[in-house]
Amino acid sequence: MKQVEKIQSYLQSNNIDAAFITTPDNVFYFTGFRSNPHERLLGVLIYKEATPFIICPKMEIPDAAATGWSGKIVGHQDTENAWDIVVQTIQDNIGTINTLAIEKAHLTVERQEAIQERIPSIQISRIDEKINELRVIKTEDELVNMRKAAELADYAIEVGCKEIAEGKTELEILTAIELAVKDKGASQMSFDTMVLSGPKTASPHGKPGDRKIQKGDLILFDLGVIYNGYCSDITRTVAFGEPSAEKREIYETVRRAEEDAVNAVKPGVTAMALDKIARDVITEAGYGEYFTHRLGHGLGISVHEFPSITGVNEMKLETGMVFTIEPGIYHPEITGVRIEDDVVVTEDGVEVLTKFPKELIVL
Amino acid sequence: MKQVEKIQSYLQSNNIDAAFITTPDNVFYFTGFRSNPHERLLGVLIYKEATPFIICPKMEIPDAAATGWSGKIVGHQDTENAWDIVVQTIQDNIGTINTLAIEKAHLTVERQEAIQERIPSIQISRIDEKINELRVIKTEDELVNMRKAAELADYAIEVGCKEIAEGKTELEILTAIELAVKDKGASQMSFDTMVLSGPKTASPHGKPGDRKIQKGDLILFDLGVIYNGYCSDITRTVAFGEPSAEKREIYETVRRAEEDAVNAVKPGVTAMALDKIARDVITEAGYGEYFTHRLGHGLGISVHEFPSITGVNEMKLETGMVFTIEPGIYHPEITGVRIEDDVVVTEDGVEVLTKFPKELIVL
Repeated sequence: MKQVEKIQSYLQSNNIDAAFITTPDNVFYFTGFRSNPHERLLGVLIYKEATPFIICPKMEIPDAAATGWSGKIVGHQDTENAWDIVVQTIQDNIGTINTLAIEKAHLTVERQEAIQERIPSIQISRIDEKINELRVIKTEDELVNMRKAAELADYAIEVGCKEIAEGKTELEILTAIELAVKDKGASQMSFDTMVLSGPKTASPHGKPGDRKIQKGDLILFDLGVIYNGYCSDITRTVAFGEPSAEKREIYETVRRAEEDAVNAVKPGVTAMALDKIARDVITEAGYGEYFTHRLGHGLGISVHEFPSITGVNEMKLETGMVFTIEPGIYHPEITGVRIEDDVVVTEDGVEVLTKFPKELIVL
Repeated sequence: MKQVEKIQSYLQSNNIDAAFITTPDNVFYFTGFRSNPHERLLGVLIYKEATPFIICPKMEIPDAAATGWSGKIVGHQDTENAWDIVVQTIQDNIGTINTLAIEKAHLTVERQEAIQERIPSIQISRIDEKINELRVIKTEDELVNMRKAAELADYAIEVGCKEIAEGKTELEILTAIELAVKDKGASQMSFDTMVLSGPKTASPHGKPGDRKIQKGDLILFDLGVIYNGYCSDITRTVAFGEPSAEKREIYETVRRAEEDAVNAVKPGVTAMALDKIARDVITEAGYGEYFTHRLGHGLGISVHEFPSITGVNEMKLETGMVFTIEPGIYHPEITGVRIEDDVVVTEDGVEVLTKFPKELIVL
């Protein structure tokens, strides 16, 4: 409940009656209860002073209780209106509320209107930034899980390299990787695993398919693992057979960009400065136009979370932040290459969670 | 573009200048472009009369173009404000808009505010129901994909049954299933595959883990496959070793409930009548309190979509609707059992897409 108390302090300081938090990842962060409610309502209502409650589908009450959550749990059935139950519960608990903080970046217009219809005088504000501010600094307990998630991601790349062979398809390699990491204790992947070969590496968001691996291909793995609710996210690009000089040059450019950015991580450096370090390396090598995305993104319970490491984010890094560094060059005629690590900002500089080697591996 | 034209007719009839559609599944439905944009903006803007455009991350423009979409495509980069680009594009295309239909059940409060800030006079209405009305009736092209997705789901259950053996864990069986269906051409699973054994079957949303299969267990598989963008969703419960009489009674009750509901499907019957048919069978057998969820849900591009088959939905079934029928009994002291099929409403009655046998299989 320590994080819940931080929200309560915030509500007290800002004189807001309650916060209603509905992002599944944030519900997990504050309650320990992880659930994918699909279109059903899941949330945690935190009052300024009273005991908070989880609202969830009735059939999930036992799972919510099993997490050890010490607040209340209220269920709703498919035949009931969940919003009537939320408002009734508030009434039963503390009477009424006049001010409510919501996640404006998550709550839908329909849901905001459902609240406004039932409490017409309600004043609604944002809780998003406060939650980001809490979640962005990882506790040591969280880092333990993230180190393990990263270790499993390293292992997945190792498996992927071993699976590469002439004529195997991207999907065959992908499936072997997922099988192996789940056997090692990963509960699930953080996102759809990417195994791209040859020309397909030039699409930053390409989809693995039936393409067969050929000598001369670069092969790009982008994958992550969830361990105890925490995500990893790694990218490595390897060569099958000796690559052309052009491909090797692109690879080494990305590697320098990535390593220079990783080595620059320390408290006080801005996100945009990091992005610039990597981008400058790529631009100076003549590939600037082919690095078409930001340098990285925050990582934790969500695979993409705050902060965004872009060329316009002036935020200064602080100890305990975790994010990816993942420059890439996507040259449509030569190849795509991306290299990605997960890093923690430490008091002294940086801890790199993903440890798989970055020298070009030729298989 | 046929479905886009239907939205344009709707906009013309209701004198609305444009619709902005942002659910990834709906973007796929109207454009053929499937993408998971995470926090980035993805949408399709359909004007009453002008050529529609897709807005997507710049790096995804080639993927969007590759779908054969004949409208325009506008990209945004991480360093730009995507909403400025949307509003600028509208200005360049048709000047301004006064009325806009959005998906209120999907668009976040923050995004609505981003539109309102840039076009303060804008009047916003809902497009959700119109889209549901289109998507709920499947075309023959869509049904071809859904039949194939269901066939792969049947195959997955077959694989699961073959994998069951004393001492194997739920996760081992799960992984073998996913490996096998991906080898058969499934692009991915529709949702996290569920393999639950013994007492864990009593949780409708339980999570597979390291529990080892034992003689006397019932084992519940709930899984689905995506084929060409369309989902299947099947549940079967099988016995490992001769089950107790109590378990068999629960199984046969669920089977009767499921089959009675399936056999009642035809145009004109209400969703709530179907729910009642299954629920009555279970209630009369004395297990009513353990059937804690609705009878089923619509199925198509999304694994949960319109319509919801609940005890309070008065909607009449129409030819071309596709949904699941999935009664269950979750008895905490005996066992859980759920049986689920995917059905299409036909002119004459029903086509059952999932065909794996429902007689209790004892392995």
